[in-house]
Amino acid sequence: MSLQEDDGQEAPRSLAPWRSVLHEVIFEADTPAGKGFDVLLIVSILASVAAVMLDSMGAVRLQYGRLLYVVEWFFTLLFTVEYGLRLLCVGRPWKYAVSFYGLVDLLAIIPTYLSLVLPGTQYLVVIRILRILRIFRILKLVPYLGEAHLLMQALRASGRKIAVFLYTVLTLVVLFGSLMYVIESETHGFTSIPRSIYWTIVTLTTVGYGDISPQTGLGQALASMVMILGYGIIAVPTGIVTVEMSQTFRRKVSTQACPECSAEGHDDDACHCKYCGAKL
Amino acid sequence: MSLQEDDGQEAPRSLAPWRSVLHEVIFEADTPAGKGFDVLLIVSILASVAAVMLDSMGAVRLQYGRLLYVVEWFFTLLFTVEYGLRLLCVGRPWKYAVSFYGLVDLLAIIPTYLSLVLPGTQYLVVIRILRILRIFRILKLVPYLGEAHLLMQALRASGRKIAVFLYTVLTLVVLFGSLMYVIESETHGFTSIPRSIYWTIVTLTTVGYGDISPQTGLGQALASMVMILGYGIIAVPTGIVTVEMSQTFRRKVSTQACPECSAEGHDDDACHCKYCGAKL
Amino acid sequence: MSLQEDDGQEAPRSLAPWRSVLHEVIFEADTPAGKGFDVLLIVSILASVAAVMLDSMGAVRLQYGRLLYVVEWFFTLLFTVEYGLRLLCVGRPWKYAVSFYGLVDLLAIIPTYLSLVLPGTQYLVVIRILRILRIFRILKLVPYLGEAHLLMQALRASGRKIAVFLYTVLTLVVLFGSLMYVIESETHGFTSIPRSIYWTIVTLTTVGYGDISPQTGLGQALASMVMILGYGIIAVPTGIVTVEMSQTFRRKVSTQACPECSAEGHDDDACHCKYCGAKL
Amino acid sequence: MSLQEDDGQEAPRSLAPWRSVLHEVIFEADTPAGKGFDVLLIVSILASVAAVMLDSMGAVRLQYGRLLYVVEWFFTLLFTVEYGLRLLCVGRPWKYAVSFYGLVDLLAIIPTYLSLVLPGTQYLVVIRILRILRIFRILKLVPYLGEAHLLMQALRASGRKIAVFLYTVLTLVVLFGSLMYVIESETHGFTSIPRSIYWTIVTLTTVGYGDISPQTGLGQALASMVMILGYGIIAVPTGIVTVEMSQTFRRKVSTQACPECSAEGHDDDACHCKYCGAKL
Repeated sequence: MSLQEDDGQEAPRSLAPWRSVLHEVIFEADTPAGKGFDVLLIVSILASVAAVMLDSMGAVRLQYGRLLYVVEWFFTLLFTVEYGLRLLCVGRPWKYAVSFYGLVDLLAIIPTYLSLVLPGTQYLVVIRILRILRIFRILKLVPYLGEAHLLMQALRASGRKIAVFLYTVLTLVVLFGSLMYVIESETHGFTSIPRSIYWTIVTLTTVGYGDISPQTGLGQALASMVMILGYGIIAVPTGIVTVEMSQTFRRKVSTQACPECSAEGHDDDACHCKYCGAKL
Repeated sequence: MSLQEDDGQEAPRSLAPWRSVLHEVIFEADTPAGKGFDVLLIVSILASVAAVMLDSMGAVRLQYGRLLYVVEWFFTLLFTVEYGLRLLCVGRPWKYAVSFYGLVDLLAIIPTYLSLVLPGTQYLVVIRILRILRIFRILKLVPYLGEAHLLMQALRASGRKIAVFLYTVLTLVVLFGSLMYVIESETHGFTSIPRSIYWTIVTLTTVGYGDISPQTGLGQALASMVMILGYGIIAVPTGIVTVEMSQTFRRKVSTQACPECSAEGHDDDACHCKYCGAKL
Repeated sequence: MSLQEDDGQEAPRSLAPWRSVLHEVIFEADTPAGKGFDVLLIVSILASVAAVMLDSMGAVRLQYGRLLYVVEWFFTLLFTVEYGLRLLCVGRPWKYAVSFYGLVDLLAIIPTYLSLVLPGTQYLVVIRILRILRIFRILKLVPYLGEAHLLMQALRASGRKIAVFLYTVLTLVVLFGSLMYVIESETHGFTSIPRSIYWTIVTLTTVGYGDISPQTGLGQALASMVMILGYGIIAVPTGIVTVEMSQTFRRKVSTQACPECSAEGHDDDACHCKYCGAKL
Repeated sequence: MSLQEDDGQEAPRSLAPWRSVLHEVIFEADTPAGKGFDVLLIVSILASVAAVMLDSMGAVRLQYGRLLYVVEWFFTLLFTVEYGLRLLCVGRPWKYAVSFYGLVDLLAIIPTYLSLVLPGTQYLVVIRILRILRIFRILKLVPYLGEAHLLMQALRASGRKIAVFLYTVLTLVVLFGSLMYVIESETHGFTSIPRSIYWTIVTLTTVGYGDISPQTGLGQALASMVMILGYGIIAVPTGIVTVEMSQTFRRKVSTQACPECSAEGHDDDACHCKYCGAKL
């Protein structure tokens, strides 16, 4: 998923002039109007998220519930209009709608409407904070985007190893969880295998709430094993990611493709294709 | 222990034709019948594990206990027949029986029979999920197997260092545990040395249930030391594994020098010098 | 922020002789008088911090409260006089006043005066322990300062990546927190979104107090996800810092080639080629 | 501190023959008698530690207390005699007495005698397990000793950096602890600054017992900061140790000194001194 915003807005050629202007204001941040719009947007997002958080606090809701309800609907309608305008002025509306930002923009208004049917879901509008990712573009935080890109690249490169690690952890967790269920039995809080698995995850990840904890000697011995295991195997993902990062951060691979054989993956300092020898 | 399935089935030369066919269906995943069998197997495994988990939940067992009991025995008998057939159609039954998958296949059916003697042990059939490791072979997840192999290699290479580390941790844990037992005494929950050692493991691994915690000032001071120690020495296994992985994963750079320009540092798969284009 | 003390005291040229002497005693540690002053200062700081800590313990305050109150004011007045003298004898008082040590020196006396208006704030004088950083200079612990400098350099170099990581963690924490608030509702201790976010931080960082913990199955499943996430992504800052450190600390290998045998890889301090013995 | 046993026993030249024989049996593991003695010693140590652990368990002590008391004294007297013999047959008794193993041998018998004066201290005899370190020598686990040596070397090389890190952590812990004491006040369990510091350590190291936890909003916000800080800065010691290990494990520095200028620290493949150019 790309964090760069290219939601189909790069090609509004055949648009009517008023749509072109609207596009520039909403999607670009180069003109004063565009910048102003973006800043206003971020302020609105922060205000609406703050309102939702305040609304969730019992004492505040009791006193200002009415006001916060109005504020919430005000921002939701505002964002709905904005979403409509975005769809309207973009060159390829569908491409925007299914892009990362398009989906977040949609998800940011759904919960309030949904709360008419399912009370309580309005709190999910906090997903709006994802919209603030645009801040990177507005504040010209491009170097940060670059770093984020590097990090993602390192994580993606180590994806398979991490998948194998996760699979191993999940298998261990199911096995140990069931074993603890048999050993500790239901009278000590291990009331079912799923709950025992929950306990095993709490223990293996070294979180350790203490809402469930082993009472028998055998259970405590097994728990000790799980703890030392969890304490030790944290080294595995750390090692994977560190090695991958050290390779990603160091090795600069050129994005150049060979003009002859189209092979990619050449080093940054290569002058000739390493496969066919053609000049790059 | 190898995750690749070569449980003696690679040489069924002198088998009767029907055993050959059976072998292909059960052990291979190349033919449609073989693939179908594997998929069916995985579904059965997941269903039987789900049944056991449901059975462990009090409310569910109360209502569907009878049904789940039948389901469990159905799958156990099914897997027993399957295990028999595997033994029958494999070239060298004994080699299969003592292989990793052979043992898991056996362990996956024993608990249900055992539960006739020792009630409660039927929950251990969750070990069946280990059978799903075959999924890697079926879904052609060979690259994942390769990654798993690499990880294991790195861990094995650092085995001795980790053993030394574990030995040190266990020694520390016994010493600190006994010290805490003397300091906090039995009135504060440290009722015996083994229990104090359990507490020390809980603390050193930064799990921290809080079911036992020091009450005296001296005990809290010592506990603080154990925490900072545990917080710090996690760096040791992490360092060991990271260094070992970085050596195991190291991108293979050829030691070949270009015959024309003597440049070095070519990738392993390069056919031409990346600087002058000469054939390597 | 530099830990080296160059608070403007390097240029007391045009000062009256008595101020010069005072400057040497207070700011330098080369003369016996200067060294004695510094040692006295550290003892005073430790004594005053100890007094505050003792004062915070109910039983001790009950018995020695009067005495500790006197001690506190004694040290505060002492440090106030010292602060005045420092301002007086330094060449550029303003530069000292806004330097790291100048600010700490000021903050170290404010809380006692503030406690006349806001009772309780006198405990904040523990900030005095920051003054002890001077110990590095006095005890000639320059190599330690060098190491501290190296560490800071590595952290600063990875600043952007860590900022991206922190931003991601904070976003995740807000999203998961709100989700848990909706799932668990107020009856299970998740009384507001901010409190849910607090719980999410407690869980993601694997602290796990257990003062709030999920009760519903869905909540526990989501909590498990947060735990495994927190357990896994610790690898990201660790990887970042490790890679950055390995680049900062890298043993300095000279890029010089031997003029005789063209061998490379000589240490930075080598004068002769380690292979043929020729002068570099 | 060296784990290799060279407690002065390497030079028993001028000893009487019976002392020579005794020395061989007790200190060496090459002869059958010496090996037998060592195995017997380890069994005795394990038995005595097990006895102490059993004695600490209330139910066991109630029933077998008398027996365990006798067992404890039997082993203590045995080890006392052994300690005496070691002193007797070693070439330089004083050097042995102050060596690592000599001190452990002494500490392993003191607690039982001490318990006559201070009841309860007999549990400290678990320090006897340190005597089992000899196992490395007996079982010819020299490669493990080598690994242990490498690990220690890496830790020692990073000693200064870790000291700086520890100093920073301790300063942070005192500052945050005092701040929390002022914010949460005594009614929420933060009854004194030392106790608040204890809580801060519990939180920063991500142990999180939950015996004390912040109740106010401001306290929870500050606690969140401490948690994220603790979650993040674990990267620092990990990075330090990893980098140091990668250098210690890789770089093989020859122990050769230059015959001309006595300089040391030459690389393994060096043929000439890098300082004066003389042939090594």
